[in-house]
Amino acid sequence: MNVPERINALRALMAEKGYDAYLVPTDDNHQSEYVGEHFKARAFITGFTGSAGTAIITKSEAGLWTDGRYFIQAEHQLQGSGVKLFKMGEPGVPTTLEYLSSVLPQNGVLGFDGRVVAMGDGLDLEAVAAAKNGRIDYSQDLIDQIWEDRPALSEEPAFALDESYTGESTASKLARVRAAMKEAGADIHVIAALDDVCWITNLRGNDIEFFPLLLSYAVITLEDMKLYIDERKLTDEMKAALAEDKIMLRPYNAIYEDVKNLPSDASILVDSARLNYALYNNLPKTASIIDHMNPTVIMKATKNDVELKNIINAHVKDGVAVTRFMYWLKKNVGKIEITEISAADKLEEFRKEQEGYLWQSFEPICGSGEHGAIVHYAATPETNIPVVTDGLFLTDTGGGYMEGSTDITRTFAFGNLTDEMKADFTTVLQCNMHLANAVFLEGTTGYNLDVLARMPAWKRGINFNHGTGHGVGYLMNIHEAPCGFRCAIREREKQPLMPGLVITDEPGIYIEGSHGVRTENELVVRKGPKTEYGQFLYFEPITYVPIDLDAVNPDMLTAEDKEQLNSYHAKVYETIAPYLSDEEREWLKEYTRAI
Amino acid sequence: MNVPERINALRALMAEKGYDAYLVPTDDNHQSEYVGEHFKARAFITGFTGSAGTAIITKSEAGLWTDGRYFIQAEHQLQGSGVKLFKMGEPGVPTTLEYLSSVLPQNGVLGFDGRVVAMGDGLDLEAVAAAKNGRIDYSQDLIDQIWEDRPALSEEPAFALDESYTGESTASKLARVRAAMKEAGADIHVIAALDDVCWITNLRGNDIEFFPLLLSYAVITLEDMKLYIDERKLTDEMKAALAEDKIMLRPYNAIYEDVKNLPSDASILVDSARLNYALYNNLPKTASIIDHMNPTVIMKATKNDVELKNIINAHVKDGVAVTRFMYWLKKNVGKIEITEISAADKLEEFRKEQEGYLWQSFEPICGSGEHGAIVHYAATPETNIPVVTDGLFLTDTGGGYMEGSTDITRTFAFGNLTDEMKADFTTVLQCNMHLANAVFLEGTTGYNLDVLARMPAWKRGINFNHGTGHGVGYLMNIHEAPCGFRCAIREREKQPLMPGLVITDEPGIYIEGSHGVRTENELVVRKGPKTEYGQFLYFEPITYVPIDLDAVNPDMLTAEDKEQLNSYHAKVYETIAPYLSDEEREWLKEYTRAI
Repeated sequence: MNVPERINALRALMAEKGYDAYLVPTDDNHQSEYVGEHFKARAFITGFTGSAGTAIITKSEAGLWTDGRYFIQAEHQLQGSGVKLFKMGEPGVPTTLEYLSSVLPQNGVLGFDGRVVAMGDGLDLEAVAAAKNGRIDYSQDLIDQIWEDRPALSEEPAFALDESYTGESTASKLARVRAAMKEAGADIHVIAALDDVCWITNLRGNDIEFFPLLLSYAVITLEDMKLYIDERKLTDEMKAALAEDKIMLRPYNAIYEDVKNLPSDASILVDSARLNYALYNNLPKTASIIDHMNPTVIMKATKNDVELKNIINAHVKDGVAVTRFMYWLKKNVGKIEITEISAADKLEEFRKEQEGYLWQSFEPICGSGEHGAIVHYAATPETNIPVVTDGLFLTDTGGGYMEGSTDITRTFAFGNLTDEMKADFTTVLQCNMHLANAVFLEGTTGYNLDVLARMPAWKRGINFNHGTGHGVGYLMNIHEAPCGFRCAIREREKQPLMPGLVITDEPGIYIEGSHGVRTENELVVRKGPKTEYGQFLYFEPITYVPIDLDAVNPDMLTAEDKEQLNSYHAKVYETIAPYLSDEEREWLKEYTRAI
Repeated sequence: MNVPERINALRALMAEKGYDAYLVPTDDNHQSEYVGEHFKARAFITGFTGSAGTAIITKSEAGLWTDGRYFIQAEHQLQGSGVKLFKMGEPGVPTTLEYLSSVLPQNGVLGFDGRVVAMGDGLDLEAVAAAKNGRIDYSQDLIDQIWEDRPALSEEPAFALDESYTGESTASKLARVRAAMKEAGADIHVIAALDDVCWITNLRGNDIEFFPLLLSYAVITLEDMKLYIDERKLTDEMKAALAEDKIMLRPYNAIYEDVKNLPSDASILVDSARLNYALYNNLPKTASIIDHMNPTVIMKATKNDVELKNIINAHVKDGVAVTRFMYWLKKNVGKIEITEISAADKLEEFRKEQEGYLWQSFEPICGSGEHGAIVHYAATPETNIPVVTDGLFLTDTGGGYMEGSTDITRTFAFGNLTDEMKADFTTVLQCNMHLANAVFLEGTTGYNLDVLARMPAWKRGINFNHGTGHGVGYLMNIHEAPCGFRCAIREREKQPLMPGLVITDEPGIYIEGSHGVRTENELVVRKGPKTEYGQFLYFEPITYVPIDLDAVNPDMLTAEDKEQLNSYHAKVYETIAPYLSDEEREWLKEYTRAI
């Protein structure tokens, strides 16, 4: 079936069910950042394969909403499909809710699969239908009924992390979660976020793209826990360990019926930001719902000493790989054919040489020349270009290792740079360093410190339209709640920075049509001195790769900047040099020299 | 009557009314920061004269709650009064609400004058009584009935500011307020905050301490306005001008009955943060209440070009006065007897020499030596000590001029300083300058930038337990909403910094028992370049007084710090020198020298 045929089939089903519109988002059942093949329903019904977008099909129209990153790709992929592209954020383009408000008839019915819609979004859709005196039906996955060769749910095996990796047993984690449940007055806790379940069980898997997570849910009571999972993923040893912790196995999708039968007078702790609409709606209406950030969120973000030691090991390995990649680029650009994609492949080769490497921790961004100015650019065979011989090459990539996941951005310089390129590179370096150099009292948040990273750019009349940093999971989500660096306050990012947090520091400058610069280190929040004024904290950078001195204009740096950069580079040399060949080590000495 | 007799008289009245407890706060009817003599009911009933505190009298006990600033003074003044001191914030000391919860009997009655209790506090009191199945009575000012020689309400005359001072007519301001009312869906707007009424009417007065405000309320409809004021304060000319703007006069206290008769279907805009409990409760219960920050708050904080020109003139005058004061101190400390109080008096003498000077813009803080470490210290004859001959003298003072009010803090050095004193002084200088040097995008708030001022102190393990700055009114409140610099977010301080805002920059370091340092300049928010990233803003310092180089350790300053300080001092010299004697000018040259 081609896309028009699929849409026709969907419309036939819609007519059967009496739906006036059907909505297909990009999410999986867990609102994961990346989704497995089984969940790519929106790509199936529209033909558009980008990572973000929403489809709405009515009796007479089919539309796809996506953002600026994907306008070109979507236009290309939607050609001849009959699907209309709605460019989100462009003047005059309605949002999906505005569109539904205008097309849904009085008494109309809006259908969607409530499992792949976040709770808050489901409530919004409910309101749109209610305003038309209509209703929603969230019980039907119509795509499943027409998608003949739909990929099955992932059946990849799980793997367990022992305490030498996690530093804390499942029993201990469950005890802490139950203490938090009691404090919140809850006797049942329903968890739908994959990383929260994986953190508790100390299990990982390969069920979604990039992040090593397992498709699963959990229902925790004060006595036991039910783990909803395809049990074929688990070894006997894992099952025995789970049983020991009073964790019972249930089929993955059984949770939707199970939660209907929770005690009608239960106090149920759920996190509305991490729950799908169907699961939320299936909770007993008489139960008392305690909407609270999952206690696991802060516990998970606060890495223990074992995790931190492992994470730093992962960064040493990753540092060796990326430093060798940098050396290879410096030696070969302009001599052999290197493209954005082949460079990314080469970088993965270097990473694969490291012990304990699993796979990339997110979709690599390798943008050469003007592609560096496209935030979130991912090269495709159609867009792939050679790495510039005069200019900048931006690489934002990461590796997943048994000891942890990395996220690093380096911008490399080749040949002749313009003064503007050097100025931008040096400014971004200052932005990065000024934030990393902060010392702050316990209680300080990311929105307090963010300005440190923006000020050098702001003083040149430049800004970057993205956050400055995000928490990083321990071999799970690369973007991890509940802390981040940004100016605006997000309701779920008010958590002060706490010791043990791993967070990125990644300012950038993007000059459309010319070049992009971004420099990203990961930082660990460490305890500094405790004085009469309170406990002070500071950042320890744990990314060990040179910042390309070929692109630095030393005249723009203050004496303090130079001292900080030189000290960082000394640390990089000391950490990475032992793992390099003599030739590489000589080169590294030069590229970590004091300026 | 002494205090015990007053309390007995109050208890007799309480018994008559059937009250179990009676609460007497420090506020006036407008929740002003300073209050007039008429409103000093709490001082009357307890004998404690500090600027902050709450009294609660029950059948068997009388208590006074005040904060750490006043523990010593309160202990002293309460001796023999039978009033028990509750030290707020100390371990084990109940809050006023906790205390009331414990002493109010079942079905008990709590009395207070609802006009001097803020709306939110009144609701809290209501809840405490309700929890005991009791009730409140907010209709009785019992203190008034026993205070025989109570000072009358202020009868000081008003004065008008013409457009050469305000830059905008009352008609224009009213038109803007009415547009905002329409936008909020309101047809009536009740205003109780003195500065909001004074801003609209372009009138000022002398009814409360320090701030040149008029006791008044306003009720604005889309057609006219009622001004509640003692009309004897107004000249015929003022009355004519008000009439021309369709502003009708009503007796000051008539508003309490008048608002009961507002249309029952009215949409009434009120600001719950700027309204007393009685006024709020008298609004028709059937009216629709729109609780919103008074539109005047942002309008008033955004100074127009005429106001800014005047404010800067006021700062030049004030700069001359404070610079001459500094010169006088430098020449005379150690030679003649100078105390904290006599120094403050001398400074006011210098200010009085300036044209258009009215009076001090707030209670001066002049702390010598270890008194400098007491935040909000105000010298009394009992605490008054000589200005140190070896050490630091902290002065936080301000002048009210027809062109505007100033707020300036300078710490002066005499004789030999310890290395720690110089280090602290230099750190505070860096804190002050790093904030003043910010460049930022429109949309940036005070809690984004505050960290710039704290970082130099934090890097030395030091913090200051107060905000870094506050908005400054144009010849009205010295602390003006809705912008401030602090780390924590206040619900009413989320307003981004806007061009035309005048805000203080006043970090400090306080070493108990030794010394205090604070350096405060006022800043104007100015428009910088507008680029593709948005409109950039920056700060222009408008306080022109040397920062005492005798206390600076130049080795702690970066090259950029020195450049900024030298450039500031060059501006001070250029601005102030023309108004000085030859001898003073020579001295100023030295004290504004480049380092």
